[in-house]
Amino acid sequence: MWTETDNKLYKKFQFENFSAAFAFMTRVALEAEKMNHHPLWTNVWNTVEIWLSTHDAGNVVTDKDRKLAAAIDQLI
Amino acid sequence: MWTETDNKLYKKFQFENFSAAFAFMTRVALEAEKMNHHPLWTNVWNTVEIWLSTHDAGNVVTDKDRKLAAAIDQLI
Amino acid sequence: MWTETDNKLYKKFQFENFSAAFAFMTRVALEAEKMNHHPLWTNVWNTVEIWLSTHDAGNVVTDKDRKLAAAIDQLI
Amino acid sequence: MWTETDNKLYKKFQFENFSAAFAFMTRVALEAEKMNHHPLWTNVWNTVEIWLSTHDAGNVVTDKDRKLAAAIDQLI
Repeated sequence: MWTETDNKLYKKFQFENFSAAFAFMTRVALEAEKMNHHPLWTNVWNTVEIWLSTHDAGNVVTDKDRKLAAAIDQLI
Repeated sequence: MWTETDNKLYKKFQFENFSAAFAFMTRVALEAEKMNHHPLWTNVWNTVEIWLSTHDAGNVVTDKDRKLAAAIDQLI
Repeated sequence: MWTETDNKLYKKFQFENFSAAFAFMTRVALEAEKMNHHPLWTNVWNTVEIWLSTHDAGNVVTDKDRKLAAAIDQLI
Repeated sequence: MWTETDNKLYKKFQFENFSAAFAFMTRVALEAEKMNHHPLWTNVWNTVEIWLSTHDAGNVVTDKDRKLAAAIDQLI
């Protein structure tokens, strides 16, 4: 479930280990680069946290963020 | 199923698309680097083929190859 | 220098070690996914070999291949 | 230059674009997995920020962090 706070879409993902988490990050990177829309994200070992907002729109949530969020959910 | 031919362990992997295939390759890369034992591998879109042999042992299959093969199978 | 043989663009890349080679592969993966045009490629330790052709055009070299080749060269 | 604050080693890295930043992250991931010592890190587009501390030692900076920091610096 993505939540919207402070003009950002946010979701936390957890995996079995670092390898699975980083493989997920690689897939998100491929999506982000394809859409030319990149996340703010944090990783520590098996946990990835993602925040999405649109810089060019003044750092608010736009359809670009909802589209990337949906694409990320497809990866799980 | 890994097969052994020409002094190499060989297995072919297929995924739903390039993104899934490359995420798998990233996980194999992490294992290979950790073991300091690297595959010969080929990718085209959703398909990854891997051949394992031990260069330092004269390009034959050794326990290092069987161990990496087992680690790769754990990723699927 | 890319060479064209058997209806494929081909180039061999060598790096200082596996880590540098796989980082290059990750950047090529990002380009390929963005263009929706994927290479046939092989890696063993510090060496990456890439063959480009266009499946949808009957496995010949097209502008899509020349564009991806140019993008790959920009990464070096 | 790594700085030590709040019992963490910290350094910020900037690259020409997302592709270069993520390739760097892939190389750091390979090092981290090899050492079985993983960073807390954040990325947004061309910027990567890394914090290193040792969970098992009570979240303080140890030689494991200094060793990983040195390995990361070798990648630049």
